[in-house]
Order: sequence, then C-alpha cells, then structure tokens
Amino acid sequence: MKELGVALIGTGFMGMTHAFAYRSASAMFPQIPKARLVVVADVTEAAASRAALQFGFEESTADWRRAIHHPAVQVVSITTPNALHKEMALEALAAGRHVLCEKPLAPTSADALEMLRAAQHSKVLTQVGYNYIQNPLLHLAREMIAAGELGEITDFRGIHAEDYMADSEVPHSFRVAKEGGGALADIGSHIVGLARFLLGPISEVYGQLETLVPSRPVARGAAERRAVEVDDVARLLLRFERGCGGSIQANWAATGRKMQLAFELTGTKGALVFNQERLNELLQYRTGQDPRTSGFVRIEAGPQHPPYGNICVAGGHQLGFNELKTIEVARFFEAIAGGAQNFPDFHEGWAIQAVIDAAVRSSADKAWVAIPQG
Amino acid sequence: MKELGVALIGTGFMGMTHAFAYRSASAMFPQIPKARLVVVADVTEAAASRAALQFGFEESTADWRRAIHHPAVQVVSITTPNALHKEMALEALAAGRHVLCEKPLAPTSADALEMLRAAQHSKVLTQVGYNYIQNPLLHLAREMIAAGELGEITDFRGIHAEDYMADSEVPHSFRVAKEGGGALADIGSHIVGLARFLLGPISEVYGQLETLVPSRPVARGAAERRAVEVDDVARLLLRFERGCGGSIQANWAATGRKMQLAFELTGTKGALVFNQERLNELLQYRTGQDPRTSGFVRIEAGPQHPPYGNICVAGGHQLGFNELKTIEVARFFEAIAGGAQNFPDFHEGWAIQAVIDAAVRSSADKAWVAIPQG
Amino acid sequence: MKELGVALIGTGFMGMTHAFAYRSASAMFPQIPKARLVVVADVTEAAASRAALQFGFEESTADWRRAIHHPAVQVVSITTPNALHKEMALEALAAGRHVLCEKPLAPTSADALEMLRAAQHSKVLTQVGYNYIQNPLLHLAREMIAAGELGEITDFRGIHAEDYMADSEVPHSFRVAKEGGGALADIGSHIVGLARFLLGPISEVYGQLETLVPSRPVARGAAERRAVEVDDVARLLLRFERGCGGSIQANWAATGRKMQLAFELTGTKGALVFNQERLNELLQYRTGQDPRTSGFVRIEAGPQHPPYGNICVAGGHQLGFNELKTIEVARFFEAIAGGAQNFPDFHEGWAIQAVIDAAVRSSADKAWVAIPQG
Amino acid sequence: MKELGVALIGTGFMGMTHAFAYRSASAMFPQIPKARLVVVADVTEAAASRAALQFGFEESTADWRRAIHHPAVQVVSITTPNALHKEMALEALAAGRHVLCEKPLAPTSADALEMLRAAQHSKVLTQVGYNYIQNPLLHLAREMIAAGELGEITDFRGIHAEDYMADSEVPHSFRVAKEGGGALADIGSHIVGLARFLLGPISEVYGQLETLVPSRPVARGAAERRAVEVDDVARLLLRFERGCGGSIQANWAATGRKMQLAFELTGTKGALVFNQERLNELLQYRTGQDPRTSGFVRIEAGPQHPPYGNICVAGGHQLGFNELKTIEVARFFEAIAGGAQNFPDFHEGWAIQAVIDAAVRSSADKAWVAIPQG
Repeated sequence: MKELGVALIGTGFMGMTHAFAYRSASAMFPQIPKARLVVVADVTEAAASRAALQFGFEESTADWRRAIHHPAVQVVSITTPNALHKEMALEALAAGRHVLCEKPLAPTSADALEMLRAAQHSKVLTQVGYNYIQNPLLHLAREMIAAGELGEITDFRGIHAEDYMADSEVPHSFRVAKEGGGALADIGSHIVGLARFLLGPISEVYGQLETLVPSRPVARGAAERRAVEVDDVARLLLRFERGCGGSIQANWAATGRKMQLAFELTGTKGALVFNQERLNELLQYRTGQDPRTSGFVRIEAGPQHPPYGNICVAGGHQLGFNELKTIEVARFFEAIAGGAQNFPDFHEGWAIQAVIDAAVRSSADKAWVAIPQG
Repeated sequence: MKELGVALIGTGFMGMTHAFAYRSASAMFPQIPKARLVVVADVTEAAASRAALQFGFEESTADWRRAIHHPAVQVVSITTPNALHKEMALEALAAGRHVLCEKPLAPTSADALEMLRAAQHSKVLTQVGYNYIQNPLLHLAREMIAAGELGEITDFRGIHAEDYMADSEVPHSFRVAKEGGGALADIGSHIVGLARFLLGPISEVYGQLETLVPSRPVARGAAERRAVEVDDVARLLLRFERGCGGSIQANWAATGRKMQLAFELTGTKGALVFNQERLNELLQYRTGQDPRTSGFVRIEAGPQHPPYGNICVAGGHQLGFNELKTIEVARFFEAIAGGAQNFPDFHEGWAIQAVIDAAVRSSADKAWVAIPQG
Repeated sequence: MKELGVALIGTGFMGMTHAFAYRSASAMFPQIPKARLVVVADVTEAAASRAALQFGFEESTADWRRAIHHPAVQVVSITTPNALHKEMALEALAAGRHVLCEKPLAPTSADALEMLRAAQHSKVLTQVGYNYIQNPLLHLAREMIAAGELGEITDFRGIHAEDYMADSEVPHSFRVAKEGGGALADIGSHIVGLARFLLGPISEVYGQLETLVPSRPVARGAAERRAVEVDDVARLLLRFERGCGGSIQANWAATGRKMQLAFELTGTKGALVFNQERLNELLQYRTGQDPRTSGFVRIEAGPQHPPYGNICVAGGHQLGFNELKTIEVARFFEAIAGGAQNFPDFHEGWAIQAVIDAAVRSSADKAWVAIPQG
Repeated sequence: MKELGVALIGTGFMGMTHAFAYRSASAMFPQIPKARLVVVADVTEAAASRAALQFGFEESTADWRRAIHHPAVQVVSITTPNALHKEMALEALAAGRHVLCEKPLAPTSADALEMLRAAQHSKVLTQVGYNYIQNPLLHLAREMIAAGELGEITDFRGIHAEDYMADSEVPHSFRVAKEGGGALADIGSHIVGLARFLLGPISEVYGQLETLVPSRPVARGAAERRAVEVDDVARLLLRFERGCGGSIQANWAATGRKMQLAFELTGTKGALVFNQERLNELLQYRTGQDPRTSGFVRIEAGPQHPPYGNICVAGGHQLGFNELKTIEVARFFEAIAGGAQNFPDFHEGWAIQAVIDAAVRSSADKAWVAIPQG
C-alpha cells in the first residue's frame, strides 16, 4: 500500500488541523502510506474550493456524499459539528472507507453506539480524534503504569479546563444546545479518554453538572437570549474497574485557562503529573530513591520517546499541538497498512461517550451510575 | 495588658511550633502583649522539663491540669493528639483560660460542638491552629474575593495531599483508629477551612472516602497487623451557600507530595491559583487586560501584604511555615488585648468538623448531605 | 506569483526540518506562494532519492549544482555543514536563486562577508535559518521594546546551553575543528542574533572562550584522539550601540540542558524573561501596577500574537519547534512575493558572525573588541 | 557553656533579623548555648530602648562602646551601615568579644583586611552575616560537589538581582556613595560568597561595572541631586582556582526582581539550579540515568537536610528567610562552644571583599585581575 486517498469533510479549526496533519505525516513517517489529498468538502462550493487550494486537495465539493464516494478515496476525515458525525460516518463506513472522526463521536452514547455497531460490521478501521492522547510522553506514562513502575495506582485526579465559554455574552450555538453536549462532552471527553487510556475502564461515576450561564444572546450583542441546555462545569467522582478511585473536572468557563488538560496520578511506588499547557514535560516521582536527592523529575520529550524522533531528531526542541494530530494520522495509516493497532477507535469513542452519559444521568439522579462495558 | 502567661500542653511537632511562635511573636509584633512562657506540660516530667529548658518555659509538669490552673497562666495551647483535645479544652475554658487548640478540634463534630458550647459560655477567646490560613497572600485572596475583584465565583477546586501515610508499613496508631479521623480530618480539614475562609459556608457535600491500606503493623516491622478504620483518600463534591460548586480532595498517601495544600478558584472576572509548596506565591488572572500581554501574574509576598512587614521588611524574602504559626499567635493575642477579631475560633473549628462529618456520612449513605450552619 | 520552485541541499536534521516547513507553509499561509518541491540533493543518489520520496520532491540528485540550476527552481535551501555554505550560496546567488541558508552563515565572518557581498550584488533575497527568532512571542517582545513599553533597556542576560557535546567521548568531527566554529558559533549565534533582534547592534564585546574537552576520539570508542580546536563554553560581556550592557553565554557541554535558549531583559519600566524550553510562554513585568497584585505575568502564545493564528486558531495550544521554521519559510516567501521584508537575511547573518569573530579575538587578546557595523 | 551574652548594635532591617534569630536559635537548637539578650545599642536612647522592649533585651544604650564592654556580653552583633563596621568590630575584638558582623565586612578590602588581622590576633571567633549560604540545600549542594557527585565542575553562572534601586528617584544615601560599595558589594557579595562556598577560591576576575542612574535626589522628591559613585550593575567573568570558569552578575536595578539570588552550576556528571526566590527547592540533574525518565529533579528541603529538622520535623513545610539567620547564629554559637567550625568568618568576609575589589579594579583597568589568596 503506497498511498491512501483522503476525503476531508469540514474545514474549520479541526478540518484545518487534519489537513496539516495529512501533509506532515507523509513527510515525517516514511514507513506509512502517503496521504493523497483527493477531495475536500464544505457547506459551500466556495469554501470547499478555497480550502482545496490552501491545503492542496485535488478536488472540492459542497456535497459530502460525493467526497465519501469518490473512487480514489479510502479514508474519510469528519470534522463537522458533533450532531452531523453519525450520518457521515455511517455513510462512509457503508462505502467501505476508513473513518477518522473528530471527538466526541456523537452527542449521545446511543448515537455513538450506532456508529460503533456500523464500524464493527464493516471491514475498515476507525479512529476518533482525541489527539492529545498521542503525546509521546503520555505513551511513556501508560507504559510505566502497565509495567508496574508506579506500583498499584491509588488515585487519578484529572481536569480539562478552558475559558472559551467564560464570557456570558458568547452567543448561543449548537455547542450549548442539547445536541452539543456541554463542557463535559466537548473537552471533558479528553480527560475521560486519557484516564481510560492510562488506567483502563471506568466502572462507575458520580456527577455534579452545572450550568453557570443560564442563557446566551442569539448573536453577539443581541438582546434576545436563548436558554443554555448543557453543563458549563462538570465534577465527576470515579471508580475504575481496576479498583482505584479518582475524580475528573471539565470546565469551559475557567477564566484564564487556555489548555489545562492536566492530571496527577498516584501509585504506591510513584506518581505522575502532566499538564497540556506544557505538553513536552512529564513530572515523575519514584519511591526508593536517596531521600537527600529525591523529588519530582521533569522529563522533557525527546527521541527516546517514540515517535518524537520522526518529528525532530533532537530532544527538548518541543512538539506542537498540530504534531499530535500528525501522530494520530500516522498511527491510523500505519494500522490501515497492517501495522500496530490504532487507538482510540470507535469502540473507545463510544466508551468515552458512555462515561459522559452516565455522568449526566448521575447528576440528574444524584446516584452513582454503573458504566456499561462494551 | 502587657503580657500573657502561656501554658503549653504537648511538646511534639506542634508543641514545638507553638513554642517557636510564642517566642517570635513577642519580638515581631510589638503591639501585642508579650508571651510569658509560664509552664509546659508533657506526659513525663523528663520530657516536660527538657522542653522547658529548650523552649524557655519557667516551669514544667507532667500534670496538664496543673499547667492549666497555674495562676500566672491566661492562655493555654493544646497540642496533644486529637482525642485528648476536648477534655483539656473544657478544663481550660472552665478555668477562664483563652485556648489555642490544634486542629482538628476533635475526632467528631459532636465533640467539637461540645467544645464550642463551652467556649460560648465562657468569657475567653478561642483559636484553632489552622495556621496555613494565616498566610498574608491568602488574606489578600479573601479580600479580592470579598471586594468582587474576581467577579462571581464559579468554582473552587482544592486539595491537601501529603505522603506520610503512603507506606503501608507505617505502623498503626491513633491516627488510623476511628478517633483519629483519617486523611480528611487530619489534613483535609485545612483545605475545607481554607475553602470556607475564602468563600464562606459550605451548604452540602457529597463524599467518596476510601481506605487504601486496610491494615497496618502494630509496630514498625511487626507481623501482627491491626485494621485501619479511617479514610486514606477523600474526594468531596461541594455546594457553597453562596451558590457556587466545588470539589476537595484529601490524601495522606499521595506518594511524592510533602505539602500540596493547593487550590484553583475561578470567578467570572478572574482566577487564583495557590500551592502551599510555594507559600510565598499567589497566581492571579484578571479579565479585561490587553490580550497581547494578559496571563496569570505571579504575586510574591511582601510588606504590602500585612503582616508580612512585621516579619521582614523586604519583599520576596520568603516567610516560612513557622512564621504562619507566629502570625496565628499574634492575631490571637491581639484579639485578647481587644484588637481585631481572631480567626479561626472554636465556632469555625466546629464548622469545619461538621463538613467532615457530613462527608463521612455522605460517603456511607451515598447521598448529598446538608451541613448544619451553627 | 503562485508558486516557488524549491531546491533543498542536505537532508540531515535541518534538511528534514526545511522539508517539513515547506510542506506546512503552503497550507498554513494561504497568502504566500505555494512551495513546489522540485529537487533535493544529497551526497549520494540513494540518500537523495530516499529523501525525495519521503518529503515529496519531484526529483533528486547527488549533484548540488544541478539542483541549483534546475530551471524550475527559484529558491535554494542550504542545510549542509557550515564549511560548505559559502560555495553553494555563491553558486545559487550567481544563478539568481533566492537563498535560505542555515546558520551560522559560515565558519568565519570573512566568509560570511563574501556571501553578503554576493547577495548585495544579486537581485534575489536571502534568509538565514535562525528560526527561534520567528517565535510570535519574541516578535511581541521586540514590539514592546521598540514601543518603549519597558522603558529604557538597562540589561540583557542571555544564554544558549545544550548538552550534546558534554560527553567527552562524542567523536571528533567538523563541529570541533577550526572550520566548525565551536559552541559560540553553533548555538551561541542564536542568542547573539536574538539580542540583536531585540536591542539592535552590539558595539563591542569581551570574550572568555574555553575548551573543556581538549581532545576527542576519532570515532566512537576509538583509542586515537584528535585535538579540539574550538570553544565548548563562551562567556561574553557586551555593549550595545543603544548604550546598554549585557552578557551572553554559549555552552554545548551543559549537562542536562536540551534547549536552554533563554534571556532576561531589564528596562526601567519592565522586564522580560524567556526560555525556549517553554517556547509558548513569555514572562513580563511592568512597573506602575498595584503593588498588592503586581508580579511577572506568564503570557501564553495565542492568535493575538501573529502569525500564531495561521497555525492554530485557539490560544494556549502550543506551537512546536518545526512550526518556527514554517514561519521562517512563510515570511521568506512573503518577502519574495513582494510583502514585508524578511529577517534575518545575509546581512544579519554576517553581523552575527562579526560579533562571534570579535568575541574569539577578544578572548585571545584579552581586550574589548569593537564590532564593525556593516 | 550554658549561655552567651549578646550585644546587638543597630536595630534596622538586619538588627531586627538578628534579634529574631537569637530568640529562635535558643529554642530550635537545644545543643547550643542559650542566647542571653543583654544589651541593644542604637543611635538614640529612644530607639534603643524601644528595641530592647520589642526584642527582649535586658538593657539598652545609645553608646555602642558601652554595649560591647558590658561585662555580661560575650558576643557582639554588628548591623550598622557598612562604613561603621570596622571601628566597632575592632573594638569588640579588642575587648575579647566574639563578633557576628553583617556583610559586607567593609567598603574596601583594605578595611576588611584590617578587621581580619585583628580577628587573627584575637582568641575569639568571627562570623559574617551571609545568611543565604546557611540554607540546608546549599550545604547539600556543596557536599555533592565535594564528593564528586557532579563530576568535574565546568561552569558556574550566578546572579544576585533585586530592584530596590531601580527607581531613579530613590534618594541618594550612603549606599550609593563611594563607601557604600554599590550593587556588587551590597548584594553581589552574596553570590560571590556562594560561588566560593561551593567551588572554592576565585583566582581571577574580569569586571564590567556600570552606573545606570548617574545622580539621585538628595531626598525623596528633592530637586537637588547628588552624583552616584558606585555601580548599579556589575558583570563579572571568573576563573576559579580549581580551573573552571564562570560568570556572576549583580544588579540592584533589576525591575521586578525581589530576591533573584540564583545560580546554575554544571559538572561533567550533573548540574544544579538554585534560586533564592524558591529557597526550599534545589534542582539536580544526574547523568547515567534511564534516558526515558531522566531530567532535573526538584529536591524539596526536609529533615534529611540538616539542620532543617531542628526547625521543622516535616519535609516540604518551607523554611523562611529569617530561619537562615537562625541557622547562622546557631552554627556560630556551636563553634563558640567548641563544636564544628563556623562559616563564613572574617577571613571569608575579607576574601569576598577581595574579589569585589579586584572586579572594581578590573572594570577600571579593562584587564583581568588576579585575586590575592589570604
């Protein structure tokens, strides 16, 4: 397999990031199939054609179905608003396309489950765009945990906080309508996924979800306001299947925070501290060191943390956000070409959704909710 | 009032800290009555007399009642294990002594309430040894919140984590028996108190308490083990009376952490970040600044943050842990001499205990528990 | 001008970075001409052809002259060892190609001057690969200084320290022979260039250069050793033309440091602190703020710092090292297309070299050396 | 020896700190003689008597000679302006008193040498108040260096920067007159002393001293100005006797900096980073660790770093600035009582002065100046 034809649907923030990633992955990861940028779709011809020109796609269209069914396409990237993912993914899967869908998979876990079922009945691979998880240092973290280097894990304390919805005058949009999902679905899903990535399934959850801004103007500056139907802040207590407990917070009204995707994880033999604000650093503590000189070590990402070396041969030079997406694409392509399994796929996407759904339910019912394991 | 005679009961970690504080307070705060170190009590004559010599007390005794009733004594410091506080405090209050009692007031809120009632029926002042709260930067934080500089507060996320009980072979002791109280009572009480100090009463709580180490050896290295009856980790969801929500964690098995008494507090106009690991720093974010150059400001403690200037005339020179206790003593003495009200007193000590009790109950009942307001 | 044909010479660390940058620049900066990847040259056909396949060049060659003279080429990237830059650049300039040459321009300022003269006699543009300087936050720093926001600048204290030569068994190579240039030329040139970028010309310098490892094995593990002819550490005192003084250090044997390109800059109205280890952060202090809450602000890079927004629409998401090179290429292409002037060009490359030469001379002569202004 | 009678001369910032230290040392260090606070002297009777009351001295006087000669006095603390140190120290030494003199010993090394000679001819001990050096973590640093844990030391890069003279309208005073000594003498002496403490004698120095503020008002707000005769910024290149090079900067006009006494120290097997802004932390890097998880370790001060445990039994609780002075006094008293030798004494005080004098001369002569070894 020398190349894979790509269709990109959606050209906003995430569409742009996907396009960058496809271009870079081909150059940074010589072992994977080249990405052939076949076709890009957007809501208007003009937008699509502008994107094609900018990102280097061969064709453009306002008809996303045409993009999916283009004969040169084997991979479809879906970067549209959450509520549109399902229809597009089902169409792409039915057409036998590998699907890279942005997160969260869908507004509800029921929808996500439908997508998962379709994926399971197909012969293609799926990927969900939780790209922070592709960080080489987080793979190191996972390996250390799996190898028992931190002992038995006793606590996970995670957060994803940003402030893009802090201003009560940010207008109403799909984001704050029921189908948007709220802070927990939009960004909390990252830390939920990260918790699962590091520690495995979450078995039950207790949630406290809050809407801080009850209504938002229909447009910037408008007098008319519409009710917000989702959470601005979510606080979750967790129980993992492996036994340990934890907590997670999501907050998109966290004044001053731009990218606080962070966690502290404690084990009987060590601890880890991470913050996406400094994505090239991981702090580690290990028991059993000389007490005079023990403490948290600041590990800097370098070629000793694959696949950092594909992106830069010198340590400490710093990967960027876009390059996490590049790694995501590279791992997906590698899996398509028969290499190591990619992660996270639609099953994982659904599983994350199931945690979120359970948390929403828990908050309404004021009771711990068990999470279905797929 | 030129001086106040002091009796110190207990000469361990906290007893030592009290002794240091009394000696320093007299020199650093010329406006308060001098501390006359009258008598120190410990379980043996030898220990008490050694302490008297070391700390400069005039007399020593193995009889704490004698210390309380010493005619030259007006203030009694109680630094014994938690389960002993009540009896001593009641005796001291009955004897008309002002009482500075270490935290937590008592193993249960019922006991704490009894102490509070006694205090209310006395004519003396009380103080509880939550000394971290005396940090000039936390007083700044409280003032900023009260003045509305951070807007409406929307979230509080606090933690107190240390690792002194992380090793499962730390022997069994009063700490891990029912009357000890567990991680939440022992250190979580600090962050509960801090949350109240900054944001006012907590109206309800949901708790998840866990025992990580089910049994501990009866002595270092012993084969025989005894069951642990308290929590090693506690995770709390909160609702404050003012409306905002929050979360708190306590963990005395947090491998690698020595003093993570920390919080992040978000308001609609700003945010604060604090960590006792760097007690002379407070991070503040403010909305409405030039976006090119806005961000979290690292405020360093200095004479502009009273009473820092009593301790050091130059900013950035760093206060130490012991000096927070010195401030505590100074504020208590000032109040006794008729100055500004001291804080936290037995009412506050009881109120913190009530939150902890509610959390324990909540964890058992798996239900939100309303907190009685005194 | 719709596209620019690129020839890349050299495919090592920097060659790879250039290739990544050309691919990304076309997608991230729609306003600039597209990069057409015409031809890549390396020392062997095999290496060149492998690179062409990986990076997407149309052709490959082992003859760098052929690459330069390829009729579809307008821009030549030179990423070979320093000692080869001059010959290649002169050839490319003579052929009327725009030249992007890696830093430092040449082992000596005499060579760099020859390159500068050739550039001045050509009609093309030149660029030198000091990509760290393209950081949006450093452009903010420069603007603030230029606008007087920091008052009169009174001190600059810079360093570039890494540890890739710390091990005395790293084999001898061109790097440590006379023509390599040493730590000051190799990495110190970055901080010299940055000092000039922020504060303008350096008028005189006093240098203390040291060789820490006097000889190195001819190959990894070999018994035979060859003398090191260059500095491992360089310490410089500076006088800027604008009047202020400063100091700079270069060290490629700085055990533990991977990317400490850092400075502190003081003015009468403020100060800046930067470290490439956290390239998305700039600390700023301003006088005249409320003393209770003043301190260093941690500014996080975001779309308010152009051209960050071309690379990512959301603040705090973190640019990476490669993206600084992308910005470099984009600004060069923009200038070629008639846009704003690019920086740093061969004149600047020579000027940096002149500072280094003066420092080397100063260290030998133990005297302040005035720096020729071109 | 059960107690030592103390006379304190001067009750400003440093006098206050000494008083605090004497009071605390007696309680924190049971093994040393008690400090009996005999007499305090200040320029007026009123000031002295107020200080006696505040700090707990038995007597007060406006006659410093009387204080020295008080029959109950064995130790004299000198905390007056630099230019007065010599006369007082000579008197105290002649009277057979142990002398703790604030830093720097004297405005010139000639004066310091005279004081040293007097000390050498006496039978008493001397101490100079460079208290930052008493930090338990810096003693750890010194031990690690001495034990070869960092390999051969190859670089020292130090700074002491504060901003108390940054404002050009701070009035003229003894500080900025010739006898004051300038930024290098006032605060640079701390980092010079620290460099010597860690690495041993400095053999030669090259200095660049600058006056940033040429004149200052005779009083706050006054129109009349007087010329500043000393350096505001000093930049030094160093050669240590052990062979390694280094650099030091002093700056008392470093806008925004309150206590940047900091250094980075590199060896072939490791590195250390320290900043007095966070005095309870020391960063250490070690070669030879697993590359996946190596990096700088943040060591937090604790009881494993003597004498931290005398001050607080729990790690991570944070020592304060005043407690470094307490350790200084304790070590001095211990030495007087026949224990381990104290440091730094008048010989060291003179040696630091000699480095500063050499730097001043070097800056004037623009030549490296060898430093006399006592």
